[in-house]
Amino acid sequence: SGLVLVKNPHLDLMEEDVLYHLDLGTKTHDLPAMFGDIKFVCVGGSPNRMRAFAQFMQRELGLAGAGEDVADICAGSDRYAMYRAGPVLSISHGMGIPSISIMLHELIKLLHHAKCRDVTIIRIGTSGGLGIEAGSVVITDMAVDSSFQPRFEQAVLDDVVVRSTELDKDLAEELLACSRDIPDFPTLIGHTMCTYDFYEGQGRLDGALCSFSSEKKLEYLRRAYEAGVRNIEMESSAFAALCGLCGLKGESCRFHLL
Amino acid sequence: SGLVLVKNPHLDLMEEDVLYHLDLGTKTHDLPAMFGDIKFVCVGGSPNRMRAFAQFMQRELGLAGAGEDVADICAGSDRYAMYRAGPVLSISHGMGIPSISIMLHELIKLLHHAKCRDVTIIRIGTSGGLGIEAGSVVITDMAVDSSFQPRFEQAVLDDVVVRSTELDKDLAEELLACSRDIPDFPTLIGHTMCTYDFYEGQGRLDGALCSFSSEKKLEYLRRAYEAGVRNIEMESSAFAALCGLCGLKGESCRFHLL
Repeated sequence: SGLVLVKNPHLDLMEEDVLYHLDLGTKTHDLPAMFGDIKFVCVGGSPNRMRAFAQFMQRELGLAGAGEDVADICAGSDRYAMYRAGPVLSISHGMGIPSISIMLHELIKLLHHAKCRDVTIIRIGTSGGLGIEAGSVVITDMAVDSSFQPRFEQAVLDDVVVRSTELDKDLAEELLACSRDIPDFPTLIGHTMCTYDFYEGQGRLDGALCSFSSEKKLEYLRRAYEAGVRNIEMESSAFAALCGLCGLKGESCRFHLL
Repeated sequence: SGLVLVKNPHLDLMEEDVLYHLDLGTKTHDLPAMFGDIKFVCVGGSPNRMRAFAQFMQRELGLAGAGEDVADICAGSDRYAMYRAGPVLSISHGMGIPSISIMLHELIKLLHHAKCRDVTIIRIGTSGGLGIEAGSVVITDMAVDSSFQPRFEQAVLDDVVVRSTELDKDLAEELLACSRDIPDFPTLIGHTMCTYDFYEGQGRLDGALCSFSSEKKLEYLRRAYEAGVRNIEMESSAFAALCGLCGLKGESCRFHLL
């Protein structure tokens, strides 16, 4: 049917669903009227970047109001920022798995309540590249953990549920094909390693509060590269796991900054 | 000596330390002049709340400029917000362990570079209470994981380092004593459970994308209470572990909202 799957039977029995961190709700807002025609959701860490992206989409799509400021739909909350440009929603998610996980829970319930159909969700942003040219874009085929496995462990109370972190292969190929139309836009498909920490988890000698052996770091990164990892960031595994759980067509594209 | 301990010998050999997510650095800013006299750092999730807290401290301390707006020291970054009121720094950390961990890494290096002495760091904010009166404040004696153990597992590349999550006992008692001077301010010392997720990790029947047995949830929360847990949130274990690692006197006080 193209609808979002929400596997919690409690949800449709509730009188009201408050999407607290988005400052939206089923009683306070007409979600189908506000969001029913959304077809693409782009998510990224920084609120300023996601506002700039919405403005960019407004210009690209030739929408009325292009060049003007866009309104933050979640202005009543300072947890996340949300902008829309035609059928495209642009939302910030902060940094790290817990932060994107809260946003995605509320976003997916929003899409469910709004009865959206055939939604594609794309995570955009920056990441650390591994053995690739600076300025490359990595399209993730699967997110992997620190032992290079395509899985995400989610604690549900004291149980650990293991979820797959494979992303949509067709969408990855489609995005790769788009990149070929743009000159000087090095783009590749690869695995993305997702860590719980920016400094120690990624072995940043220059930034961590504890010390490392640089030999150990190089040996680890070599093994990661051999396992197919092409970039490292902090959200892809939760993103892939939740897209998979709810039947959303999802993809993660990261720009390798340095 | 009262100085902050940074156990990474690389740090003092670097020509420049860029505290990227705070938009500060050792070459671009005179950190000792800007921050050398800081004695208290208060951290919390929301940027708006931390601005309001800085304004509150300005009034409480009778500082010049009280009642006026305060400037965001990290205005060049939209990852975190930082305000100061006399010897008190007020900083937001977003939601979840990875987000607070990035901020604390850069904050602790800031305190190190600024040669601050005898700094006390207090985490303030809201949390979900467990078997306590609504409106209570929980002062954390130790952060515990989902199996109620006072430990934090930090992945350093592919090694897992286990760190203690006990907080400063004297500071906890001191804060408890302060609360007694305020009428109608129920305050207690207890364990705080730290989760990686707001919905599934905390078993929110009404919010999760998968379903739970409510009996299992109640049984789990009963066991948590018996183990001494009085509130649940998403940052305390990384906070306690990093304070302990760097010799900072730290405490976490959470207001039980609902």
